[in-house]
Amino acid sequence: MGNGKNTITTDDLPQTSRRRFLGTGTMLGLAGAGVSLLSGCKEDGTKAALAESAPGAKTAGGFHEVAPGQLDDYYLFASGGHSGEARIIGIPSGRTLRRIPVFNIDPMVGWGITNESKAILGTNPDGSLKYVTGDTHHVHGSYKDGTYDGRWLFVNDKINARLARIRMDTMECDKITQLPNVMGFHGIFPDKRDPVDPKINYTTRVFCGGEFHVPLPNDGHDLDDPSKWGVLFSCVDAATMDVRWQVRIDGNCDLVATSYDGTLVASNQYNTENAADQAGMMAAERDACVFFNVARIEQLVKDGKFTTIGHSKVPVVDGRKAANGDPKTAVTCYVPVGKNPHGVNASPDGKYFVCSGKLSPTATVIELALVTKWFNGDLKTERDAVVAEPEIGLGPLHTAFDGKGNAYTTLFLDSQIVKWNVDKAIAQYKGDKSVKPVLDRVDVHYQPGHGYISMGETKEADGKYFNSGNKFSKDRFLPVGPLHPETEQLIDITGDKMRIVSDHTAYPEPHDAIIMRRDIVKTRQIYNMDDFPNAVKPENAGIERKGNKVHVRMMSQAPTYSLPLIKVKKGDEVTITLTNHDKVEDLTHGCAIPHYNINFIVNPQETKSVTFKADKPGAYWIYCTHFCHALHLEMRSRFLVEA
Amino acid sequence: MGNGKNTITTDDLPQTSRRRFLGTGTMLGLAGAGVSLLSGCKEDGTKAALAESAPGAKTAGGFHEVAPGQLDDYYLFASGGHSGEARIIGIPSGRTLRRIPVFNIDPMVGWGITNESKAILGTNPDGSLKYVTGDTHHVHGSYKDGTYDGRWLFVNDKINARLARIRMDTMECDKITQLPNVMGFHGIFPDKRDPVDPKINYTTRVFCGGEFHVPLPNDGHDLDDPSKWGVLFSCVDAATMDVRWQVRIDGNCDLVATSYDGTLVASNQYNTENAADQAGMMAAERDACVFFNVARIEQLVKDGKFTTIGHSKVPVVDGRKAANGDPKTAVTCYVPVGKNPHGVNASPDGKYFVCSGKLSPTATVIELALVTKWFNGDLKTERDAVVAEPEIGLGPLHTAFDGKGNAYTTLFLDSQIVKWNVDKAIAQYKGDKSVKPVLDRVDVHYQPGHGYISMGETKEADGKYFNSGNKFSKDRFLPVGPLHPETEQLIDITGDKMRIVSDHTAYPEPHDAIIMRRDIVKTRQIYNMDDFPNAVKPENAGIERKGNKVHVRMMSQAPTYSLPLIKVKKGDEVTITLTNHDKVEDLTHGCAIPHYNINFIVNPQETKSVTFKADKPGAYWIYCTHFCHALHLEMRSRFLVEA
Repeated sequence: MGNGKNTITTDDLPQTSRRRFLGTGTMLGLAGAGVSLLSGCKEDGTKAALAESAPGAKTAGGFHEVAPGQLDDYYLFASGGHSGEARIIGIPSGRTLRRIPVFNIDPMVGWGITNESKAILGTNPDGSLKYVTGDTHHVHGSYKDGTYDGRWLFVNDKINARLARIRMDTMECDKITQLPNVMGFHGIFPDKRDPVDPKINYTTRVFCGGEFHVPLPNDGHDLDDPSKWGVLFSCVDAATMDVRWQVRIDGNCDLVATSYDGTLVASNQYNTENAADQAGMMAAERDACVFFNVARIEQLVKDGKFTTIGHSKVPVVDGRKAANGDPKTAVTCYVPVGKNPHGVNASPDGKYFVCSGKLSPTATVIELALVTKWFNGDLKTERDAVVAEPEIGLGPLHTAFDGKGNAYTTLFLDSQIVKWNVDKAIAQYKGDKSVKPVLDRVDVHYQPGHGYISMGETKEADGKYFNSGNKFSKDRFLPVGPLHPETEQLIDITGDKMRIVSDHTAYPEPHDAIIMRRDIVKTRQIYNMDDFPNAVKPENAGIERKGNKVHVRMMSQAPTYSLPLIKVKKGDEVTITLTNHDKVEDLTHGCAIPHYNINFIVNPQETKSVTFKADKPGAYWIYCTHFCHALHLEMRSRFLVEA
Repeated sequence: MGNGKNTITTDDLPQTSRRRFLGTGTMLGLAGAGVSLLSGCKEDGTKAALAESAPGAKTAGGFHEVAPGQLDDYYLFASGGHSGEARIIGIPSGRTLRRIPVFNIDPMVGWGITNESKAILGTNPDGSLKYVTGDTHHVHGSYKDGTYDGRWLFVNDKINARLARIRMDTMECDKITQLPNVMGFHGIFPDKRDPVDPKINYTTRVFCGGEFHVPLPNDGHDLDDPSKWGVLFSCVDAATMDVRWQVRIDGNCDLVATSYDGTLVASNQYNTENAADQAGMMAAERDACVFFNVARIEQLVKDGKFTTIGHSKVPVVDGRKAANGDPKTAVTCYVPVGKNPHGVNASPDGKYFVCSGKLSPTATVIELALVTKWFNGDLKTERDAVVAEPEIGLGPLHTAFDGKGNAYTTLFLDSQIVKWNVDKAIAQYKGDKSVKPVLDRVDVHYQPGHGYISMGETKEADGKYFNSGNKFSKDRFLPVGPLHPETEQLIDITGDKMRIVSDHTAYPEPHDAIIMRRDIVKTRQIYNMDDFPNAVKPENAGIERKGNKVHVRMMSQAPTYSLPLIKVKKGDEVTITLTNHDKVEDLTHGCAIPHYNINFIVNPQETKSVTFKADKPGAYWIYCTHFCHALHLEMRSRFLVEA
């Protein structure tokens, strides 16, 4: 074991209590016809699990409670999966502090409705939104000196190959970039420093792992010959959000992780077979964790050694195996790992990357220094960069770190979190058979995907909380029909034994998250009016007509709009710009126009605008939707459209 | 006081602790220029509030905690305000169990994307959605025998005057009705039994209070003469969701409440002045609570004594004051209450309706039997139906009942919940000056709107929890930028003193809610495949072409789609119908098509479809978005569009 074999017997497994037999049976099913057993269907473990977890939680009660008026210790920033949004959650309370609309339409804030948000989202020639859907998977924060700097969050859209940025002072999306010639874009990670310039000790790039093979360009050619299709790995400039460069690779990227020294980026890969069907994707015994040599790629781009694809002007460097046979000039290093691995994570000490086995019950530990050695031509094979491969349980997906030398891996099939020690795993791999790397296990409910530790993806990993993002909740919450919530299970990892503290629900799918100390986050509590070039002030407020274009410049101050009456003609193109002049924190106003599909809010000192055609004659009441004042209900303005 | 005067001195106020002076100062501001002080701006009370509430919460700790693996005792069904959705929350945990998309687009489930949901939402001739926004205010459940029957929830859209129904077995919206000639439709309430047929002891009607005056019909005429505009109160058939009838009224309806005996419906009203500006809306000393005599209205409709408006065929009965001078034939009874009241609620004993004063520091108790007496011609004036008007504090908005004779009213300006006894208030109103109706007060954080008690709007009101829906959270949670969450504050009301148990966050705006015992809710946990006439089964699965229309009938079963390869031609109109053949609870699959704006889920045994034009040649990977299986990432199908 530990070297990639993929059938399992009970003898191979570490001691895993009641789930041992079940899990093994499930796994063996894969070899036969019963592939569907790999899904989250172990109904029979439920009652035992309840009995096991309840006492632990009671012990924990009180300590992790956030009493009324108390604040949480951490922010959890989560992707919202195929809801297209991002989310801010307080830890340990589990309270959702805010939804951040990104790729979705959010009628509450007016995201996808206001002119400003439409410009960020992208529109068709007729002004309609290009997309109204998204699939966010991974949220990561910008770094400085190896830890979060509280400046930006980045989040991907897998469906339409977009990367979005959220500015953390206002917690709003301010840029969206579509990656050219990429489909099924999944893992992302910001860099932590520059590989060349030591002065740049902060995030300036975001790396994006392309997943699905498609024709390059995807214009209708080569449809019947997927062997000619390709996958691109992309680098986006964090400040401009332009795509800097792309690398054509073999295989499908899953997750992405960056080294603390800025030199290398890792992406675990399945389908290195470059197949177009499921059997083909699982044919090879090994897949890979590919490492990108950032300095070398950027030197090639600088030297003009790249191509472009279709209409895109982004430089594309060839990172396929065949073109990178010589380590000393290679831009990529494909380290073989177990087939179809899932997840790659960098340890906070900067030394290791851990890939999880998924179909193999192992985690693979790769040492950064050895990959660098390979790039220097001083390591015999890529596989020699592997320094450990402990057996940890069934269906390992993602690994988090506590900053004390321990790794915590989610086991999808076992429905467990397993805690194991990296140094012990290395010692075992070196041949010390007396070492037992696995330190503890805890059942979670059920089928965990990502797991994240407080500050765990920084050099300040503090080992306080592990949050398990469980894909199935089954019977853990009151029934609400065929669509179940998912479970974010919070685990106290301060002691030797992990203890489940609470089950929080999540609207599918809170795919991945990061947990940030609260002192890092510095938000504005009201906007600066002058940040909005179109702000409406007393001197420019009013109604201006130019031909059939009418610009209504309005101010709000509780409980009134500055214009009680607005008159336009049928057929006019109307722009309403609204500035909220209230300065009191939390004093938000809304602006809805019945039958005109207009609904948005303006926070204190904020300005937003909408443009629409006044095509329906009649009287319409613009009204405030965001409860602002005792006379909120009376806060309205007449909007008259003359026939 | 107590009879509608509207300037307040400190002497008028009951004992209200530290907020007394503050609140009074705020209120007095209204008389001068400082109307904006009525908004939630009392920053200085914060620290004192924390100090006061924390100990109570600690005492409560443990009892109200929902440990991992334990279930909540109640469902809270909340409107989602201008997010356009409804929400299911567990009580006491505060966990959001599910969002129910109603008037919004929800990329996760595919609401507003699938053919089935578009048919419910309504489309323009070009197939695009008519509206992508909504403003839900009130959620109410269907009744049987004076309590919830767990069949339906109803929720309004104020922006576009729509009423939606949610079936509680699957917790999905199944019908949306647009009310003709109505704008700013706000309060709703289902009836509790039929006023004529005693066998019908369950909900068959939903009453809808129209708010804004508009020309009738609203086609561009009378724009400059708001005095000619009108407001309609509507009755929707609960089973068919057709509009049965409407009543033209004076004033703007706020909330709606129905009597337990089915005879009368109440709606509190502001702007009985029928004014079109804020000053006009506040001119009169008194507004009203209007009562509708359901049997008489329906007799008029049966007798053909109605008109219709514009293109609508819905019968409209005249319920204005001028047309209803004779109580014995009147369909409406306008009971005068303090100006601009807010909220009307029916007591669980069936006897009383309580209107909150908003601008007056009182609640007005109206006795149902006396209103009935008025309709019989046996009561001198409408005002004689008032049996109490206790002074309870500043900015009373909504009242809930514990089933033990006590009322709990939210005080927006005082940021308090006040508990008062209805019988004591009646005794005081009769002249007993020794009686003190107010029993307790608790500070909430901050500016409460609606408040709701467990089962409080049924005859099974159990007096366990009061939930305060607070409009401002200010400093109660970690800062997340200028947009704050709102606070749902849970209060234990089982003892003599109210105790705050927890602060739950809510994404704006959780306007109103009901709290239902969990035994009442019976959901399906998987669908019945045969309920879907378009279900795809092995016998009809595959690809069918008719001219340029291609119907792709596909099945999902973890971890595969039944069709690994789908080929169409550019310009084809493609319909994809997907049936999930997995039967395991919680085993949901997703279906996304990159760049084609397609994203939806199918729960176990469910069928959904999408139709779109294949206008972009190339290779696209249909993939599963809802984590289903260890090989979820590999669950894909090639969708090829030939140029």
